Amino acid sequence: MSTQPARGMRDFLPEDVRRREYVVDVIRKVYDRYGFEPLETPAVENIDTLLGQYGEENSKLIYKILKRGEHEASGEADLALRYDLTVPLARVVAQYQSKLPRLFKRYQIQPVWRADRPARGRYREFYQCDIDSIGSTSPVVEAEQLAAVSEILTTLGFDDFIIRINHRKFIAAWLNQVPVPADRHGDVLITIDKVDKIGKDGVAKELGEKGFSEAQITGIAVWIGAQHPSSWLDTIAPGFVAAGDTGLENLAQILRLAAHTGAGDKLRIDPSLARGLGYYTGTIMEINVKDLPGSIAGGGRYDNLIGTFAGTEIPACGFSLGLERLLVVMQERAMFPPQVEQSSVDVVVAALDERAQGLAMETASGLRRAGLRVDLYPDVARKMDKVFKHVDQRRARFIAIVGEDEVAAATVTVRNVATKTKQTISKADVASYVMLELGVSTDKGL
Amino acid sequence: MSTQPARGMRDFLPEDVRRREYVVDVIRKVYDRYGFEPLETPAVENIDTLLGQYGEENSKLIYKILKRGEHEASGEADLALRYDLTVPLARVVAQYQSKLPRLFKRYQIQPVWRADRPARGRYREFYQCDIDSIGSTSPVVEAEQLAAVSEILTTLGFDDFIIRINHRKFIAAWLNQVPVPADRHGDVLITIDKVDKIGKDGVAKELGEKGFSEAQITGIAVWIGAQHPSSWLDTIAPGFVAAGDTGLENLAQILRLAAHTGAGDKLRIDPSLARGLGYYTGTIMEINVKDLPGSIAGGGRYDNLIGTFAGTEIPACGFSLGLERLLVVMQERAMFPPQVEQSSVDVVVAALDERAQGLAMETASGLRRAGLRVDLYPDVARKMDKVFKHVDQRRARFIAIVGEDEVAAATVTVRNVATKTKQTISKADVASYVMLELGVSTDKGL
Repeated sequence: MSTQPARGMRDFLPEDVRRREYVVDVIRKVYDRYGFEPLETPAVENIDTLLGQYGEENSKLIYKILKRGEHEASGEADLALRYDLTVPLARVVAQYQSKLPRLFKRYQIQPVWRADRPARGRYREFYQCDIDSIGSTSPVVEAEQLAAVSEILTTLGFDDFIIRINHRKFIAAWLNQVPVPADRHGDVLITIDKVDKIGKDGVAKELGEKGFSEAQITGIAVWIGAQHPSSWLDTIAPGFVAAGDTGLENLAQILRLAAHTGAGDKLRIDPSLARGLGYYTGTIMEINVKDLPGSIAGGGRYDNLIGTFAGTEIPACGFSLGLERLLVVMQERAMFPPQVEQSSVDVVVAALDERAQGLAMETASGLRRAGLRVDLYPDVARKMDKVFKHVDQRRARFIAIVGEDEVAAATVTVRNVATKTKQTISKADVASYVMLELGVSTDKGL
Repeated sequence: MSTQPARGMRDFLPEDVRRREYVVDVIRKVYDRYGFEPLETPAVENIDTLLGQYGEENSKLIYKILKRGEHEASGEADLALRYDLTVPLARVVAQYQSKLPRLFKRYQIQPVWRADRPARGRYREFYQCDIDSIGSTSPVVEAEQLAAVSEILTTLGFDDFIIRINHRKFIAAWLNQVPVPADRHGDVLITIDKVDKIGKDGVAKELGEKGFSEAQITGIAVWIGAQHPSSWLDTIAPGFVAAGDTGLENLAQILRLAAHTGAGDKLRIDPSLARGLGYYTGTIMEINVKDLPGSIAGGGRYDNLIGTFAGTEIPACGFSLGLERLLVVMQERAMFPPQVEQSSVDVVVAALDERAQGLAMETASGLRRAGLRVDLYPDVARKMDKVFKHVDQRRARFIAIVGEDEVAAATVTVRNVATKTKQTISKADVASYVMLELGVSTDKGL
């Protein structure tokens, strides 16, 4: 029988889990401080909730669950695995309208499943870390989300990220100015969205093939690929505002507010940032890190999506961090703090004979009560080299050894793994001795 | 379109998530201190990994996932949702034998899915919190697990739990003594396992129907339903040990070791505790709490299961806590600490007009930097009653209000929600003022 995990999915061994938990913990704490509240939804949704939400191509990637019992033979599916966290949120907002506050800010950190072709950094089970603010169209919403996501990245140790920001209405305004007729805006967006992959020349070529004129292509090219500081808005805004564009004014408000937060100096306006997803209606945001193709986070305003579930329009704006992408970069750059990478236990306790196992148990209990992480070597330690190998695998810093002599004298022999020195300690004092050696003050109780 | 979650599954709104996270956090911290390491496996397994592991009846409850793409129409399933955490562990131990330590102790806290008939407290998606110790047959393993699980329950505030313990080999020994022939032990176990539901009389009746004699039924009845302290072993052990039973001696060793831990005085020997699962080979353990039918945790030794994946026999022992069952009791008994049940944010910041939104943003940034949980009211607070309603929903303890006057004077007006008193504070001092009022020392940085 194969013992591999399913294709495109991963087992997380202890050191992997620790790295993931460290990042999730940072994310969760920042979102808590920003007043976002935790939400969790089931891994499994009714299939009708998901189908028709993501477009035909994406829907092929949804994992479908067979009906059970007598209907299993029909080969029909009635359930499906969660594909993203936004559609379940829309369902939840609609379902619990009376229980949730009108202004609802939630975070959700859960896996999603997509039957995509596995590739480097692309998995079939992966975590999304989403925030969404429901119920307000205020620019404060975007500014607050930008600040929260920036703070997460800064806390994790990223110092080279850039937040690109744009606005769907501003894109429409400059396309009108080129001019490109409104019914061809979609065509242009699909092409300029590929600029990272095919370059500006490739965009020009494709636009030519789509039948746009030389003048139009030149007019479009001006806006592509450049990133501007917020001051740039002052130079171009008057013309656009005069022409009735509201997107640019909204963008300017967001930038002014974000200047009061840590996100301020990370923001660049990128007039051609389009993002693929069809449901955005206003701001579009994306965060990039050097040397990593593609984005590490992205989001935007979508004021119409929730209405398809709730029946009434409810404005919303969200940001999604990709846990796997963060981890890839952090691992390459060795950004994890020592406590995540180092020892998994502080002390291994070992008994040299069976009659000392009671004292070993008691010693472990005392050390654990003091807040230390303690592994009890379960077998009788007849050969110390086996114990040393185990201590090495657990990267423990101390070994507490008990045998006949220790039982008789009510002591414990403590060996410092790094210095290879031994010390015999009265059993009542073992915990404080080890904590002192580890440099942990007992006052803090860890 | 229905906005309900899938049948038998649940959405967790913020207060639910907070309660769940509190319990999971306690569990994780205790297991860490006991030297267990975190493991996570995918929600989805190859279907061949799961089928044939749980018996025919249970296998009907496995959620099966349709093949994708061109094979979808075949109605065949190649994947399935995780049904428990033990089989994935056995697969992982076999797959990574060279990477994992010979003595491997892991915890795993993840959901499992069973297409069971939904009922009160029985869900189709629920969390298991498992520990397993791989690679040793020492009684230290059981004693350590009993201590860890006891410590979790004590930390959560349970003081009335009883740990029932028994041994498969001891059951066999007393059944031999009755006497019941070895090939009919299974028949007896199936019946006595129902004693909680049908009572001692029901057990006697069913044994009679199964053809056991009056003498046998009386001989069996002696062992059923009684719970004995560890000292009881001294009175009955000699006879059994003389008859060659190794189970009782093993049990005695575990009890002697556990006496050195917090589990000691919670342990009762229940000679008829059988537990349904077929794979146990030695100790069987179960924890019960008053007023809750069924167990809150259970486990035992299974020295043969991993061999079916690894090809070579690897001893193992595990314990599983049911998160949902813990939560049901804790909610009924109001066992959650105030910080879990109380406010979700410390301060709501509100701007009275648009020009004050920058100062509101700055105020929120400063309060968050100080470690406080802050919600920014996104809309301009033209009507304070709307803000008050929001503050009430968020259960915030302070409102920081900024308007024209505050912008001019570089101050913030802080309102204490409980006392309804207001104070105007220089904007540089807002964070320390609120922290002082909340009784949070700035030294601790929260």
